[in-house]
Amino acid sequence: MRPVVLLTDFGLQDHYVGVLHAVLHRLAAKAERIDLGHQVPAGDIWGACFRLRCAWQHLPENAVVLAVVDPGVGGERRAVAVRVGDRWIVAPDNGLAMAAGPVASVVVLEWRRMGLAEPSATFHGRDLFAPAAARLARGDDPEDLGRPLPPESLNPCPLPEPAHSGTGLEGVVLHLDRFGNVVTNIPAAAVAPAVGLHFGAGEHAPRVRTYGDAPPGEVVVLEGSSGLLELVINGGSAVVRTGLQRGDKVSVAR
Amino acid sequence: MRPVVLLTDFGLQDHYVGVLHAVLHRLAAKAERIDLGHQVPAGDIWGACFRLRCAWQHLPENAVVLAVVDPGVGGERRAVAVRVGDRWIVAPDNGLAMAAGPVASVVVLEWRRMGLAEPSATFHGRDLFAPAAARLARGDDPEDLGRPLPPESLNPCPLPEPAHSGTGLEGVVLHLDRFGNVVTNIPAAAVAPAVGLHFGAGEHAPRVRTYGDAPPGEVVVLEGSSGLLELVINGGSAVVRTGLQRGDKVSVAR
Amino acid sequence: MRPVVLLTDFGLQDHYVGVLHAVLHRLAAKAERIDLGHQVPAGDIWGACFRLRCAWQHLPENAVVLAVVDPGVGGERRAVAVRVGDRWIVAPDNGLAMAAGPVASVVVLEWRRMGLAEPSATFHGRDLFAPAAARLARGDDPEDLGRPLPPESLNPCPLPEPAHSGTGLEGVVLHLDRFGNVVTNIPAAAVAPAVGLHFGAGEHAPRVRTYGDAPPGEVVVLEGSSGLLELVINGGSAVVRTGLQRGDKVSVAR
Repeated sequence: MRPVVLLTDFGLQDHYVGVLHAVLHRLAAKAERIDLGHQVPAGDIWGACFRLRCAWQHLPENAVVLAVVDPGVGGERRAVAVRVGDRWIVAPDNGLAMAAGPVASVVVLEWRRMGLAEPSATFHGRDLFAPAAARLARGDDPEDLGRPLPPESLNPCPLPEPAHSGTGLEGVVLHLDRFGNVVTNIPAAAVAPAVGLHFGAGEHAPRVRTYGDAPPGEVVVLEGSSGLLELVINGGSAVVRTGLQRGDKVSVAR
Repeated sequence: MRPVVLLTDFGLQDHYVGVLHAVLHRLAAKAERIDLGHQVPAGDIWGACFRLRCAWQHLPENAVVLAVVDPGVGGERRAVAVRVGDRWIVAPDNGLAMAAGPVASVVVLEWRRMGLAEPSATFHGRDLFAPAAARLARGDDPEDLGRPLPPESLNPCPLPEPAHSGTGLEGVVLHLDRFGNVVTNIPAAAVAPAVGLHFGAGEHAPRVRTYGDAPPGEVVVLEGSSGLLELVINGGSAVVRTGLQRGDKVSVAR
Repeated sequence: MRPVVLLTDFGLQDHYVGVLHAVLHRLAAKAERIDLGHQVPAGDIWGACFRLRCAWQHLPENAVVLAVVDPGVGGERRAVAVRVGDRWIVAPDNGLAMAAGPVASVVVLEWRRMGLAEPSATFHGRDLFAPAAARLARGDDPEDLGRPLPPESLNPCPLPEPAHSGTGLEGVVLHLDRFGNVVTNIPAAAVAPAVGLHFGAGEHAPRVRTYGDAPPGEVVVLEGSSGLLELVINGGSAVVRTGLQRGDKVSVAR
């Protein structure tokens, strides 16, 4: 039985996450369920992709990821299950299914072929994605979920990659975290260890190894827990101090 | 072993939910626990009833629901376990126990009969309700929890039902959800498919099937995931746009 | 297999808690995981100590508590596993490891001895503490985690104890909870049952047994669920009404 990892924008104040767990329990009671998170901002595909990408290498090797951030629910967007390595991602085809890496195979979910009741207009997480994830967790044949699709026809993940420039790398802010860290899309491994980060209107943050290496109150850049450069302040919030927003440009020399 | 479904207004910032899980673990380690939610607003019995009613049909068929929204804790209100179908609800007798449907039998929880220490003045969730839920999960005889009570003597669920009027149905707003949807108490099945919803000061929302059928920015009404009519905006918040509050009147022609 | 109890300040909007669960799953799949909470304010060691202390007696008797509130991550602070009774706490040595009671033995975690990759600079919860907790959960020898340390050399828990004065006990506010209760550090058992609490600028709250004994709107003091005196208002918020902050002085006569 594969474990199911849940990632949604359902929030925790309504009953939606509880219902998702209940449906998974009824269809695959013995599959362990791990909450990767449900506080992705409503409709925020980029944010869901970021969380999934950062968590990816730590997930159970045979996980089924049930990822539901689905602003197009009830519309024309496809619902898919994609295989990445030995894991599956069950998600809308809005970029989320492409967040983790090269997709080996794709199935377009079909409720009739799965023998399900017609999904509601607004909660495919409960009516389509969770039943599909439960079947994959139980080891059902993916071909029983729907028709195959070439991976090339999936919609791309919206997370931008850094670009080479004449003098270095140009990137963007990917995420502002709960601790006030500003996470960029520039891999620390792509940059020499002593090189700082340019951001904002001509500002520059020196590179350090840990929080403790930074004078309190000073914006510095370090390698964060996902291998990406992030702006931080020892004991403070780089988000507040820099005013940076997601998508804002940053750059490094090399 | 029956699974235990938890629904409370304890929030997640304190240790209260963790303690509830720990107590259940100690008394029924093998019973699976499913969080239906802990962010019901403090003391909001209506809100707890709504969530329980919406989730009900999806819960494990033999679930024990531990539902603790208990503003009267330590006072005269009764603590009960009620059987509804093959499920149990363990809750204060403040309407919550009546949220899910017809009650087949009731037991008034008695800590002495259960062999418990005298409950604290403020945390019966930990000291009385969770131990009772754990016993039901383990398959103990309900008669060992306390004395029987006629179901008719339970306090009613506060959720109002829609009323027939000369020209249609009059209902109220039951819930404002995290996505900005305004959920009413009018079942879509009670209304013809093309009929819109009247709300506010003479406003009217046309009926659609899905979000995608609505022009962006326009308030429409559709059948939500619990079968109730709800006001929504494709890509926006009907809560913000309409200013509707819980309890506000809405109506449909038929 | 020991159950693992998680307490962090990671919040729920990022992927950090999900990753912690995933790492524990990979290293000790059969160990049950119980979330004591992840909404400790960022860096708030006092708040984490309070929650752990209140929950302590209710935790599984052989629990491994993974407690990560770690503002000094990457710096000189030690990472430890401490034994308290038959339980373990895995935590930074910043006071958190001393929150629960007398420590019988201590191991300083060493990633090389554990055969781990070098921890990242910012996420020892994932790279060091969770692997250590997983090993203890599996029953590994604590000596394989690192070198022993005398318990006396641990940093103390920051929660203050009440002090005897000529006329009674002087204490402080320990916690403001989600229900608006103001929890002090004065044990109800140390005070006669009819004695009220002095707070603020000469204010006094009479002692009651339960919420129901208080007139609505009046600040009263009662024995809270952890045996500590707390200021409450029946149907209201003592936090809002009194304006008390954590650390503010309170006192009782005896």
